[in-house]
Amino acid sequence: MVEKNIPDIVISRLPIYLQTLHQIEKQGETIISSRELGELFGITAAQVRKDLSFFGEFGKQGSGYNIDFLKSQIRAILNIDRTWDVALIGAGDLGNAIARYPGFLERGFSIEYVFDSDLTKIGKLVGGHIVMPSDTMVETIRAAEIQIAMITVPSRAAQQVADDLVRAGVRAILNYAPVPLNVPENIRVETVNPIIQLEHMTYYIK
Amino acid sequence: MVEKNIPDIVISRLPIYLQTLHQIEKQGETIISSRELGELFGITAAQVRKDLSFFGEFGKQGSGYNIDFLKSQIRAILNIDRTWDVALIGAGDLGNAIARYPGFLERGFSIEYVFDSDLTKIGKLVGGHIVMPSDTMVETIRAAEIQIAMITVPSRAAQQVADDLVRAGVRAILNYAPVPLNVPENIRVETVNPIIQLEHMTYYIK
Repeated sequence: MVEKNIPDIVISRLPIYLQTLHQIEKQGETIISSRELGELFGITAAQVRKDLSFFGEFGKQGSGYNIDFLKSQIRAILNIDRTWDVALIGAGDLGNAIARYPGFLERGFSIEYVFDSDLTKIGKLVGGHIVMPSDTMVETIRAAEIQIAMITVPSRAAQQVADDLVRAGVRAILNYAPVPLNVPENIRVETVNPIIQLEHMTYYIK
Repeated sequence: MVEKNIPDIVISRLPIYLQTLHQIEKQGETIISSRELGELFGITAAQVRKDLSFFGEFGKQGSGYNIDFLKSQIRAILNIDRTWDVALIGAGDLGNAIARYPGFLERGFSIEYVFDSDLTKIGKLVGGHIVMPSDTMVETIRAAEIQIAMITVPSRAAQQVADDLVRAGVRAILNYAPVPLNVPENIRVETVNPIIQLEHMTYYIK
């Protein structure tokens, strides 16, 4: 599989292809054309073929893609043909909702630890996990070699938590706090920010 | 203010400019150059100037942008120089977390109604709102002329809720259910999907 110099914009589309393929498969389809994929996706068939050609030959012109095969290939490319252990920092309302949501595990993200600094939360059960004190976080994550963390602490605490996670060896952070995080270049951060999405939509409803 | 044929990719960057400007202002800055904005943002100064030029003249070359003025202009462009009433459909764990989170109101999105179809939830208080039965949703939203809704119901119920919201006159939907929604072309939908963001990051952590 050739994987050189692939633009991040292409990588960012792969999880969305995968999600679309899941949906199509549920409807009983086994084959899909680049034209159909493009239509579902709002891009051209040529763009779909170009995106997927970065990773090798997945289908033949005219015969369409085998959905099951394409899914397994994209999963391999994205390194999600495995389960990832995840640490969740922040056991407030949102942390609770996330810890109890089964959708992460269904897609291979297994929340293994929940941390909080609030003494009233430590020791309680959240989504099947005992909330652990934040001051044990760095050593626990390092020992368990956890590489992915989600931050659901208040904004004012988020940067300190991010610094600690980097020290603990975490390489990817999903940030629910509405503040930008400063991390070293080799650490990935994605921010979940529904306000940004709302503000994008209001432009169109005058 | 000239607002013709502005590419959606430019519109989608404006909320992120705004967020960045909020952060900079908190640090005590009053003026920012397109170069600094671009650096914070990972794009070129030329791209920043090009983006903002779609909407008129916000600053002079060499003297930078007045942050407060630029913020107010972007807020006007995005139609967020006002408060938007919002309906929340689904009073489960995530709906609870959202209803109790003060960040939406701080940014001008006021959750006014919470609906659920679950008899054990109806009538309970969630984030200061009494949960109302879903079968009153269409008439309530229509009467209140609410244009924005958030869907936090299970996937299997999301499309039906979306259909009802469209009937009720809603024009923008923030969808937390991990399924695509079919809506008429004139309705905006944005999906909050943290799994997609996680899967984007795992590509980079081999």
